[in-house]
Amino acid sequence: MATCGLTEYEAASAEVRAVYDDIRATRRTDFINNFWKALAHDPALLKRTWESVKAVMAPGALDPLVKEMIYVAVSATNQCGYCIASHTAGARKAGMSDEMFAELMAVVGMANETNRLASGYQVEIDERFKT
Amino acid sequence: MATCGLTEYEAASAEVRAVYDDIRATRRTDFINNFWKALAHDPALLKRTWESVKAVMAPGALDPLVKEMIYVAVSATNQCGYCIASHTAGARKAGMSDEMFAELMAVVGMANETNRLASGYQVEIDERFKT
Amino acid sequence: MATCGLTEYEAASAEVRAVYDDIRATRRTDFINNFWKALAHDPALLKRTWESVKAVMAPGALDPLVKEMIYVAVSATNQCGYCIASHTAGARKAGMSDEMFAELMAVVGMANETNRLASGYQVEIDERFKT
Amino acid sequence: MATCGLTEYEAASAEVRAVYDDIRATRRTDFINNFWKALAHDPALLKRTWESVKAVMAPGALDPLVKEMIYVAVSATNQCGYCIASHTAGARKAGMSDEMFAELMAVVGMANETNRLASGYQVEIDERFKT
Amino acid sequence: MATCGLTEYEAASAEVRAVYDDIRATRRTDFINNFWKALAHDPALLKRTWESVKAVMAPGALDPLVKEMIYVAVSATNQCGYCIASHTAGARKAGMSDEMFAELMAVVGMANETNRLASGYQVEIDERFKT
Amino acid sequence: MATCGLTEYEAASAEVRAVYDDIRATRRTDFINNFWKALAHDPALLKRTWESVKAVMAPGALDPLVKEMIYVAVSATNQCGYCIASHTAGARKAGMSDEMFAELMAVVGMANETNRLASGYQVEIDERFKT
Repeated sequence: MATCGLTEYEAASAEVRAVYDDIRATRRTDFINNFWKALAHDPALLKRTWESVKAVMAPGALDPLVKEMIYVAVSATNQCGYCIASHTAGARKAGMSDEMFAELMAVVGMANETNRLASGYQVEIDERFKT
Repeated sequence: MATCGLTEYEAASAEVRAVYDDIRATRRTDFINNFWKALAHDPALLKRTWESVKAVMAPGALDPLVKEMIYVAVSATNQCGYCIASHTAGARKAGMSDEMFAELMAVVGMANETNRLASGYQVEIDERFKT
Repeated sequence: MATCGLTEYEAASAEVRAVYDDIRATRRTDFINNFWKALAHDPALLKRTWESVKAVMAPGALDPLVKEMIYVAVSATNQCGYCIASHTAGARKAGMSDEMFAELMAVVGMANETNRLASGYQVEIDERFKT
Repeated sequence: MATCGLTEYEAASAEVRAVYDDIRATRRTDFINNFWKALAHDPALLKRTWESVKAVMAPGALDPLVKEMIYVAVSATNQCGYCIASHTAGARKAGMSDEMFAELMAVVGMANETNRLASGYQVEIDERFKT
Repeated sequence: MATCGLTEYEAASAEVRAVYDDIRATRRTDFINNFWKALAHDPALLKRTWESVKAVMAPGALDPLVKEMIYVAVSATNQCGYCIASHTAGARKAGMSDEMFAELMAVVGMANETNRLASGYQVEIDERFKT
Repeated sequence: MATCGLTEYEAASAEVRAVYDDIRATRRTDFINNFWKALAHDPALLKRTWESVKAVMAPGALDPLVKEMIYVAVSATNQCGYCIASHTAGARKAGMSDEMFAELMAVVGMANETNRLASGYQVEIDERFKT
């Protein structure tokens, strides 16, 4: 179980409920996933994290699907089981097809490989790449 | 300097030159960056890595710009200086604007934060996310 | 199960028992957690690791609770499930309140985020920070 | 140089200046380090990150020095050169002695070692540690 | 379950079957582990990854057992549960004794510790080590 | 410069000199690299780390060259510039040829790639690999 437990809506303070309500309204679903219920232990962290996630993941110069896939890329690199599962679900909901997922994984694997080849071979940054 | 040196075109074997030629043709530039010159120490690795990169980064279900940004996301997460520099340059060439870069970084930072919150709080994966 | 099994006290060699006895005496408990039972496969590693942990985690310029929280910070960053669980328990035993845990997590999340922003934006170290 | 350059106070928008002013007032110094000047490329990220850092690093259940040391622990684990340098300076300013730094490093090294021993030996979490 | 499911031999396309057949022939076993069945979702990735693994893990200047142990070292460092389990099994099959595994883990733990001490203490590379 | 400076032999305490003398005798060289001079800030850490390194890197079930290569594999995975440089030099001294280095890098790159594919595809550990 999560370290300080999961806070269900019914047991939540007004401050936490306000965040839960906003998650539900923004995502158009009643479902609150465990991540938020665990963070509710620290209402200030919950509020700050949710507001950042809402701002960062909103459409902008990049569309939400691209952002979800970047999230999966980082989570797979860090091998965070929870975030891989939840953001793969999120990316699918935002429109990721099986083909897109496959290409995403191929890039993530490749990048992790070449990152180590570049550092292992001690490759110096080309002058051209120094901005 | 790179561990086993950098192989310039003039000093390269026919096998290595063939890869360099393909890099130049594919990327429509004479420039070969240090990463490839370092891998040329191992012609089989050079060939395999280039062919994989060429296949993986080609347009498909995801467009090349999205792929370059995913590459940057992984490289920033791994803190690989060479790959951040070279793929940021690559992403710009593929059309990444300053606004897109800024949003990319915001997602990468956020994902790295929540990855640790999820694991630190020992959050269990919701049933709904188990496929 | 652990790769080379878990060594219980009854089945342990004199060398391993001596370490188990010291763990019990130092921690004032009969409980030996699985980590030590797994390392017992390599008595030299068990002894060296335990002696280092005992020396490093003892009170000094930093108090044991701060050290336990630093341990949790590193383990959450590395996403090591075992160490997050065992050192969160250890930190609680050393006096970590729910409020302290919450602040610890907030710092860990924030540091992981800004680490990637610093590297992703390729920020150069300020002269003032070069010692 | 930072990917999108560094924004000096004189060249900054009113929005960015307001953050710089708050950094200066909060830290009681005129010095703005490169990290913030780089983030200024994205004023929304700058503002959100600074406000989070200010909230998270303020005194609470943990004192600011402990928080700075946790920041260094995470940054050393991630091997982020910029953050190691800047937060080591920050920790010193908050009162970290050479002895405290030495103990901090000893814990960080030890935790990184045992994280891998725990995962490499595939140690299962003890029932007692499951909350 | 794996994100896009596991493809069994009977349900596989001719392209996937050809890879499975080669895995079986190369490894002299009928067993196909889940990793390949998951990658089969993307036949091009499956083929490229298998061919690379086959080439990289074949005997050469390093013998296959050493290569399997290096694989375990990387996987323990990244804390990838699947790869630790599968390559520990692979290394045993290639001849790794309990004593060898114990020494492998000791080196992996030590390297992860000193990596952080080197970066945390901000140690400069000795001139002698610059090739 | 290293955070707490480098301690040269002439300025070192008797305790530190004893470790330096043992490093020189064990390695049959007068050269003390910066890592040890930085750790000398904390004589207890210096002594403990050196004694562990000496024990772990000595010939045993694995030969010293294999151990050096495992060290490089971990350091490249963690992208620790100092340790990559010093242990690549150490591995060469222990007999690593250019061909062996090339194969080492190929395995390290491959393992980092497949680690992420395994976690990204959420592959479950095969029953057969559960010991």
